[in-house]
Amino acid sequence: MAVIPASHSDLLAKKAFWHIATLGPDDEIQTSPVWGGWDGEHFLFSLTRGRQKYENLVRNPTIAVSATDPDNPYRYLEIRGTVVRVDDDSSNAFIDSMAKKYMGVDEYPMHQPGDQRVVIVVAPRRTSRMG
Amino acid sequence: MAVIPASHSDLLAKKAFWHIATLGPDDEIQTSPVWGGWDGEHFLFSLTRGRQKYENLVRNPTIAVSATDPDNPYRYLEIRGTVVRVDDDSSNAFIDSMAKKYMGVDEYPMHQPGDQRVVIVVAPRRTSRMG
Repeated sequence: MAVIPASHSDLLAKKAFWHIATLGPDDEIQTSPVWGGWDGEHFLFSLTRGRQKYENLVRNPTIAVSATDPDNPYRYLEIRGTVVRVDDDSSNAFIDSMAKKYMGVDEYPMHQPGDQRVVIVVAPRRTSRMG
Repeated sequence: MAVIPASHSDLLAKKAFWHIATLGPDDEIQTSPVWGGWDGEHFLFSLTRGRQKYENLVRNPTIAVSATDPDNPYRYLEIRGTVVRVDDDSSNAFIDSMAKKYMGVDEYPMHQPGDQRVVIVVAPRRTSRMG
């Protein structure tokens, strides 16, 4: 597993928005921002089952994510990797931890009826960085 | 050609950092932030010949870019499209216009010896947005 460069590991603790690139049907690239977490070995983010990004990753677990430092946009970290697990989050433990990190609240306030929350677990394979 | 939604076209005029997702060798997804411009029909960004992203786009012109609003990270715009031209920028006209937009200076101050600047011209095919 790739090691996150020590010079840029602080981005994983910051309120950085991570742009998640996945492959859709017909190998169309798709990208959008998400909240990101780190468990010491894996990059983590929340999705709901049935979303386009979820379907993409079930079909093809290849992924790349990048974020700029909220305090200096000329620093960035990219992580390329593979989705190695999709963990159930029906307790909302993970999405609540992200709401705490990014919004400073104890409970994620934007649930929609029928949402089935999961945690996407990404093993890094390679990184790149600047700044 | 896809129309940029009027609700989010302001992001193209802002100092937003656009995360550019391309396909590398073996269909590895790669993503990293760049400055972005807009000519009324195309998304534009600067590269130097020989960079990995440049090689990726010559091999496979499929691309997606996304940015959050610098004034509200819960607004974002994604543009999925195709590279339709690579324009020479040996005059530095385009990279200087980006330096003006993002840094407020007349001339791009970070040239490296041997850089051959080009403008990547992306025709939008589809967009997505939030906020």
